[in-house]
Amino acid sequence: MSATFPTLEKTNRTNVSEIAEHLAGTFAQTAVERDKQGGTAKHERDLLRESGLLNLLIPREDGGFGAEWPEILRIVRLFARVDSSLAHLFGFQHLMLATIQLFGTEEQRQSYFRETVRHSWFWGNALNPLDTKTVVSQNDGQIFINGRKGFCSGATDADALIISATEPGNPRLLIAAVPTPREGLIVQNDWDNIGQRQTDSGTVDFFDVPIYEPELLRSPGPLGSVRASLRPCIAQIIFANIFLGIAEGAFAEARNYTLAQTRPWLTSGVESPSQDPYLLHHYGDLFAQLQGARLLTDRAADSLQRAWESGESITENFRGRVAIDVATAKVATTKTGLDVVNRIFEVMGSRSTTAAARLDRYWRNLRTQTLHDPVDYKLKELGDWALNSRIPTPTFYS
Amino acid sequence: MSATFPTLEKTNRTNVSEIAEHLAGTFAQTAVERDKQGGTAKHERDLLRESGLLNLLIPREDGGFGAEWPEILRIVRLFARVDSSLAHLFGFQHLMLATIQLFGTEEQRQSYFRETVRHSWFWGNALNPLDTKTVVSQNDGQIFINGRKGFCSGATDADALIISATEPGNPRLLIAAVPTPREGLIVQNDWDNIGQRQTDSGTVDFFDVPIYEPELLRSPGPLGSVRASLRPCIAQIIFANIFLGIAEGAFAEARNYTLAQTRPWLTSGVESPSQDPYLLHHYGDLFAQLQGARLLTDRAADSLQRAWESGESITENFRGRVAIDVATAKVATTKTGLDVVNRIFEVMGSRSTTAAARLDRYWRNLRTQTLHDPVDYKLKELGDWALNSRIPTPTFYS
Amino acid sequence: MSATFPTLEKTNRTNVSEIAEHLAGTFAQTAVERDKQGGTAKHERDLLRESGLLNLLIPREDGGFGAEWPEILRIVRLFARVDSSLAHLFGFQHLMLATIQLFGTEEQRQSYFRETVRHSWFWGNALNPLDTKTVVSQNDGQIFINGRKGFCSGATDADALIISATEPGNPRLLIAAVPTPREGLIVQNDWDNIGQRQTDSGTVDFFDVPIYEPELLRSPGPLGSVRASLRPCIAQIIFANIFLGIAEGAFAEARNYTLAQTRPWLTSGVESPSQDPYLLHHYGDLFAQLQGARLLTDRAADSLQRAWESGESITENFRGRVAIDVATAKVATTKTGLDVVNRIFEVMGSRSTTAAARLDRYWRNLRTQTLHDPVDYKLKELGDWALNSRIPTPTFYS
Amino acid sequence: MSATFPTLEKTNRTNVSEIAEHLAGTFAQTAVERDKQGGTAKHERDLLRESGLLNLLIPREDGGFGAEWPEILRIVRLFARVDSSLAHLFGFQHLMLATIQLFGTEEQRQSYFRETVRHSWFWGNALNPLDTKTVVSQNDGQIFINGRKGFCSGATDADALIISATEPGNPRLLIAAVPTPREGLIVQNDWDNIGQRQTDSGTVDFFDVPIYEPELLRSPGPLGSVRASLRPCIAQIIFANIFLGIAEGAFAEARNYTLAQTRPWLTSGVESPSQDPYLLHHYGDLFAQLQGARLLTDRAADSLQRAWESGESITENFRGRVAIDVATAKVATTKTGLDVVNRIFEVMGSRSTTAAARLDRYWRNLRTQTLHDPVDYKLKELGDWALNSRIPTPTFYS
Repeated sequence: MSATFPTLEKTNRTNVSEIAEHLAGTFAQTAVERDKQGGTAKHERDLLRESGLLNLLIPREDGGFGAEWPEILRIVRLFARVDSSLAHLFGFQHLMLATIQLFGTEEQRQSYFRETVRHSWFWGNALNPLDTKTVVSQNDGQIFINGRKGFCSGATDADALIISATEPGNPRLLIAAVPTPREGLIVQNDWDNIGQRQTDSGTVDFFDVPIYEPELLRSPGPLGSVRASLRPCIAQIIFANIFLGIAEGAFAEARNYTLAQTRPWLTSGVESPSQDPYLLHHYGDLFAQLQGARLLTDRAADSLQRAWESGESITENFRGRVAIDVATAKVATTKTGLDVVNRIFEVMGSRSTTAAARLDRYWRNLRTQTLHDPVDYKLKELGDWALNSRIPTPTFYS
Repeated sequence: MSATFPTLEKTNRTNVSEIAEHLAGTFAQTAVERDKQGGTAKHERDLLRESGLLNLLIPREDGGFGAEWPEILRIVRLFARVDSSLAHLFGFQHLMLATIQLFGTEEQRQSYFRETVRHSWFWGNALNPLDTKTVVSQNDGQIFINGRKGFCSGATDADALIISATEPGNPRLLIAAVPTPREGLIVQNDWDNIGQRQTDSGTVDFFDVPIYEPELLRSPGPLGSVRASLRPCIAQIIFANIFLGIAEGAFAEARNYTLAQTRPWLTSGVESPSQDPYLLHHYGDLFAQLQGARLLTDRAADSLQRAWESGESITENFRGRVAIDVATAKVATTKTGLDVVNRIFEVMGSRSTTAAARLDRYWRNLRTQTLHDPVDYKLKELGDWALNSRIPTPTFYS
Repeated sequence: MSATFPTLEKTNRTNVSEIAEHLAGTFAQTAVERDKQGGTAKHERDLLRESGLLNLLIPREDGGFGAEWPEILRIVRLFARVDSSLAHLFGFQHLMLATIQLFGTEEQRQSYFRETVRHSWFWGNALNPLDTKTVVSQNDGQIFINGRKGFCSGATDADALIISATEPGNPRLLIAAVPTPREGLIVQNDWDNIGQRQTDSGTVDFFDVPIYEPELLRSPGPLGSVRASLRPCIAQIIFANIFLGIAEGAFAEARNYTLAQTRPWLTSGVESPSQDPYLLHHYGDLFAQLQGARLLTDRAADSLQRAWESGESITENFRGRVAIDVATAKVATTKTGLDVVNRIFEVMGSRSTTAAARLDRYWRNLRTQTLHDPVDYKLKELGDWALNSRIPTPTFYS
Repeated sequence: MSATFPTLEKTNRTNVSEIAEHLAGTFAQTAVERDKQGGTAKHERDLLRESGLLNLLIPREDGGFGAEWPEILRIVRLFARVDSSLAHLFGFQHLMLATIQLFGTEEQRQSYFRETVRHSWFWGNALNPLDTKTVVSQNDGQIFINGRKGFCSGATDADALIISATEPGNPRLLIAAVPTPREGLIVQNDWDNIGQRQTDSGTVDFFDVPIYEPELLRSPGPLGSVRASLRPCIAQIIFANIFLGIAEGAFAEARNYTLAQTRPWLTSGVESPSQDPYLLHHYGDLFAQLQGARLLTDRAADSLQRAWESGESITENFRGRVAIDVATAKVATTKTGLDVVNRIFEVMGSRSTTAAARLDRYWRNLRTQTLHDPVDYKLKELGDWALNSRIPTPTFYS
């Protein structure tokens, strides 16, 4: 561990945001180059490990920080402003920890959380509910997993994985928490997409991978209780914060660019682009949209936190309201974000398309990440609530 | 005063929202008919007088209720859901009271506030900064006002008016608070517009109307201090709440209509409109927009309240931030509101255009009120803030 | 018949547009007042009768004018610019004539067309495919119709009606062409809606109304052949022209208003609203949208005309392509039109909301008429074509 | 020259579209790979040279093809569907030829056109009206150009260039047509932008480059007559066709992808994405927009052709109307195109973001090219026409 880097273990609470901002600043310096290269952000992942921030959700008594969701999500957003791939990995670390807590027993939670702190584990995701190609078999009482799974965000360089697989004839997923170094488990380094290029969301292959009983998150299991069904809410609010962070980062970079480099249009009649009526109109409109998206996203984080704190006493209706708040935030950040990452070019002008600046990465990142699940069906869920007072049926996406 | 109606004088704090909701329910019963008739809502204005709610802003020591702006504005919004003309009159009562407090001396404030409580005064607006046709003259040390003024909201049936006039060669407005029964002051009953039909926003004629020294709000005078320049913020956040209330009312009425009366389209393949994918999409989108607009509007109300409480110590920068919050709310409620009042027809269908229901009144009211001052220039102000960190220069509209 | 008014019988082809423009000018003078009154535009309907324009579609050999659809539809649009109720009645006259030609025999066509010319018949619509309350019964070989039918556009003051009714157990409509003075047939004068106020689209009651064999349009009957299924295309392209005409009329009136009456905003920095950057932006955007809508609408009219001319040889595929062209025009004119009738107020300002000008009538008329059938399902049809190369299945709406 | 490739020299008129489609098919096969590489498309440029299509505009008597603008622009659009960089280069070849014809003498036109045919010249653009860094000097009666010029589309591998430079104290540009192999003229191979990656729009450096009198296009010179001012109309309608072609290509690829690879969403209730109500809605909306944009673009091409044919007799007003038609097409294709290239991902789903397919290139190409000059000011010009009947003042952008 770096001798000079402040970490949570050595520091007090007031330093979390300082550490996060320091990391964000570091990430920003190489974000453009790393977007170009793609692949695994090994150095930055290690900085996250060293920082202690991977343990934010873990209670103090287990060696973590006991942070609340709004704080964690603000850091997701902070990272997303400069590097939305790292924001995704960081957010998913906490989604994986939450998965253990929500789907498994208290004993499992304590065990995995303490291991995470002890070894600075970075968790990866090999849980893909739409994927039916990873199957469970039993041989002599031993469970094995075989098959291929796609979209495994953060799997490369992960110390441990949350894995899903299906048993023949059983619609419910089997979920396990497994250290990555495991016989037969091969993480392919094959993620190469137009955006979110360092999320390592590639393929994991399973060749007779043994899974042991203590690793199975069966009680209550996936979406196995009202509380367990908070998992998709957490995934979705992480996305909303990534979307918002991308939009905020794009807006900030556009603003700097306009002020420093844009020239007034020849028929504009103004001396500076900062006086151009149309540029001001664009900035005003995007600003207003962002303000609304921010409030909705913060509100959803607060709703989630209250639900998280209510433990097993959470009602279906309460969970449903949280899902609605989260979906509203996701819809708003999707719409606003896409508008921002497109329109920034109109307030920067033609020179902003130089490949060196890679200002298209905001659009590529957001366009990629917003396709995780269709926003049209989120709007339908909101409509079902608004018109029919029907809360969303929990699935891995709702 | 009605013997049976609960009023603030007789009741405690917990009853304010009860009184307001009771009034809203009463207004709702006749709103359609009164929209048709136009003219002065004399009966409803008297109900407001009797209710004591016209004294909400007035401190308890002066016989009022000492309510905060967020509470007052929530009631503006509540009324706007069912009758946006009455919401306007009610909101402007408090804008007029605030004008006295912001532009005049403490002595004037106390005097006028106490008169307001004692006589259940309903205040009207004859302050129109763009109007140069009402002029001040002096004769033997006595000030007179002559001329014609338009858009005098709430002037008919008003017990007192806030009046503006211009002195030759002086760009600053002269503002006075004057009882309506005054020689030479004639309120024309000529407001007849497509929307906001009972706001009585007609003409006031002045024929040698004498104005007395204690009636002049000269210290600090119009926008005469940072604090005094909060007035346009109050006007604009009242508008935002009216816009939002109209949108909420339209949404609620559309929802009831869809559930009760709309039939599924013949090629929709669904049994009920409540399952139609496109109707759900519309409802979801409008709901998400409304949620964002609500948060922005509430946030602006909180900002205003903090500014109001800071008294004379308010800085230009603080006031500027309040103006930005208010402008953001106004932009969002304008955009969202116009979308709602247009699209509700698409989720209700052709039968909803029957004149008997007058469901077009939401559009007519919002379209009319949103033209008070151009939203394009509000967006420009927001852009000037977002791009150039420049706070709005206070005017009667900013 | 007026002695001074030019009519087609007395004039040559070059006068059609002259007559139409003269009529449009006449309609314009009273459109505001008649929008206020609602009810039947008896005087204007008689002017249409006298003008001969009701016979435009009728071949010369039958005493009509033998006009092509593009010409007829341009006149629908011309009328819609100033009075969209009259445009609707005029358009539906031709839809009714087309219904006879498409659903009936050549003998019926010739007979009804010649009667129309001889008596200057104005046709009304009592065909409503969604209405199941008008039923057919037989007694001693005589057909009777009983029941109540809504949305019967143009029924009041109509000389003849196209009527639909259902036979128990038969999904196909029975369609008849019947003179309005018929025992048991009562046209209620009860249309009172927020827009399209003089389309007389009220109720018709049937009390044992006898229908005679020669009046039944059974061969090929409703949508009884590919050619017969052109009827909904005609209805829909009439709507597109009404929508476009309303938008053009609104745009023209807004332009005149801005140039003559609007004042520059106080912080605009320009001397005239005609230089305001935001007003110019609005006008430019609306203009560009209107240009696109015009081309699509004209193209659809040309498609229809080619289909009309192809007679019985028309293929399902050709008919399908016409339906797509028409649907595209309808979608574009709906979207553009609604944007125009809303935004014109932003380029005119608050004074344009005066009730005297009734400038809201453009919105009220378009909002009402665009609800005839849901635009969402038109978009779905277009999508089915664009994605799946599937042409619309003919219904009374597609 | 390739022995097997059909060229115009050997073929008759009916083969132009065949040749163009063959070329488009060839370009399509390597477009993804070449988008990745960037740089000069030497092989494809040579195919264009061999095809004879670079001579389309050149009259038959000068050895060219004498094609009309609508035909040339349809080929620009055809190429843009598969490779918008090549479409740009091809379009600009004709813009350069038109520049010679419009700015120079008939003698110059004939000379350069014949040289172009004889040597299969590909022309590049070094005319940049906003660039003031390329300056003219004189020494002993000889003109020299010095300085650096950016955005020189097609300069690399160009056989000849159209060059602009400024004389001290003279606001009017000096324009010359110069063979690229010229002492002191260095084409930098430095274009590397996010989109339009093979347009070679890099820098050209001038070190005492001599320009000879017959190379100067002085009569009538740049925008030196009404006819000469058609040049920006040609540039802009080329852009509109590029934008439209990109959108059409994106739409076609999305359609194939949806049909072949997209899976229905888990809560959609449909068996195939081709039945999904929201996907159909997207396709329908985009289709309708594209239809409108196509008609506007074709109409503008026709307007240009009529103006081109009218020669020196063209009036300012006629030229103004052409500019309005062209601007309308450009505005519509910009707006529609950006919507298409963004939304295609929503109808394809998350797997479509794979880097291998580079489906983001449609967005990158369109976003880059649409920044050539700001669409906001095009809208302002349209507004000036629509509101004030003022035709655009000719500049290099209007």
